[in-house]
Amino acid sequence: MGVLRLTLAYDGTGFRGWARQHDPTIRTIEGELTERLEVVVREPVRLSVAGRTDAGVHARGQVVSFRTASTVPPDRLRRALNRALAPEIVVVEATEAPEGFDARFSAIGREYAYRVDEADSPDPFTGRFVWHRPGRLAIGPMRTAARSVVGEHDFSSFCRDPGQGRSTVRHLRRLTVSRRGDVLEIRAEADAFLHQMVRSLVGTLVAVGDERLSPEEMAGILGARDRRAAGGRLAPSRGLSLERVRYPRALTSPRFRR
Amino acid sequence: MGVLRLTLAYDGTGFRGWARQHDPTIRTIEGELTERLEVVVREPVRLSVAGRTDAGVHARGQVVSFRTASTVPPDRLRRALNRALAPEIVVVEATEAPEGFDARFSAIGREYAYRVDEADSPDPFTGRFVWHRPGRLAIGPMRTAARSVVGEHDFSSFCRDPGQGRSTVRHLRRLTVSRRGDVLEIRAEADAFLHQMVRSLVGTLVAVGDERLSPEEMAGILGARDRRAAGGRLAPSRGLSLERVRYPRALTSPRFRR
Repeated sequence: MGVLRLTLAYDGTGFRGWARQHDPTIRTIEGELTERLEVVVREPVRLSVAGRTDAGVHARGQVVSFRTASTVPPDRLRRALNRALAPEIVVVEATEAPEGFDARFSAIGREYAYRVDEADSPDPFTGRFVWHRPGRLAIGPMRTAARSVVGEHDFSSFCRDPGQGRSTVRHLRRLTVSRRGDVLEIRAEADAFLHQMVRSLVGTLVAVGDERLSPEEMAGILGARDRRAAGGRLAPSRGLSLERVRYPRALTSPRFRR
Repeated sequence: MGVLRLTLAYDGTGFRGWARQHDPTIRTIEGELTERLEVVVREPVRLSVAGRTDAGVHARGQVVSFRTASTVPPDRLRRALNRALAPEIVVVEATEAPEGFDARFSAIGREYAYRVDEADSPDPFTGRFVWHRPGRLAIGPMRTAARSVVGEHDFSSFCRDPGQGRSTVRHLRRLTVSRRGDVLEIRAEADAFLHQMVRSLVGTLVAVGDERLSPEEMAGILGARDRRAAGGRLAPSRGLSLERVRYPRALTSPRFRR
């Protein structure tokens, strides 16, 4: 009874994103999860989510929360959900959360990873989770470009339609590029992200790595505050994964863990 | 023109195995590959394959060959097939092969890997390619049991219906068990394998690791030459992958590589 918090990992390939749709034939993460949850706790459930991932986007550390009158132990809940949903959707952890905890509104940071496979041939074992783009990207210029947009800025150039009157200022705390074998990984961390912001940043960085753009142009695109400046360079959703969500320490104390 | 050889990797999850079926609505690796190949080389194609993998079984190093009158360069063929079939089915390499090369009949060894995920929670990023079976298996007894069946033996205890009059003697050259993180890997190498032989060996080894069988019983099961002795312990197909096929050196000389 109270607030429960779940940490989720999922393969987003077969889903039309997080958000439940009116049409029940459209598979969504929220839809499948809510449906099973309601069977286990025997009451309607309304989920709060840290990151509303788009169609085809994956997660290793998504966080959701909900209020419930049920007294089912969190670990039993976790196992019951995994029996029904794994391996596509996996509940990695289920714990009680303090009163007032809300997966979306309590979050103070989100971290995404984007993976580009540079190998000649795609790999069927990782192919669902990377953007296969054969050929080496120039990592140095990409890093220079990435550094130039870190900080608190208006990111409307890297955002799809924020909605009337919504703030497009975000604090991008980290944007790094690394390589391991054939896989280039771009990590982005911010207080929150605008819609399609990571994929738009990645698409632009890849244009820099490909020498279609110079690293110096990145700051100009940011400064334009106009989506057209980024030229619609959107990296495909399959390479993106929500890796982690951060909360204030007081909301994640061991007292609330089982 | 002549004989072409392709090395394939595939995610077998969505396929009813290698062998093409009469019903065209049933997806098979052979069916999808043949259909695309025929479009590229503009003639009927009949494939020879090193390992006829079952439904749900994967491959990293499957080998096929076929005769063709087409003069399309192997690398162009590879790219055309990957554009149509990747990332589910990937042509890793395409080369000319010497006259007389046949992927099935020229093969002198096959190597399979079977992966068991022992972690508490399944992992959506590897879940298609492992048998998720929470809890640690006893690796020492499994190794003892594995060693006791290596060699040239009648493996009918570990075979599903070999067919009337067919030999069930195979030379199992290697059967090893190793662990990396949460993943237990069983490697099997032989001149050739009987139907369901690897999955049956793995199922029995897991029973040893789980202490339902003693390591000494493995040799007794082998000696019984009766499938009922193995008790139908068949590991699920999702954990199995054909890793490599070996050919005599003379058939893989650099002269035949582009």
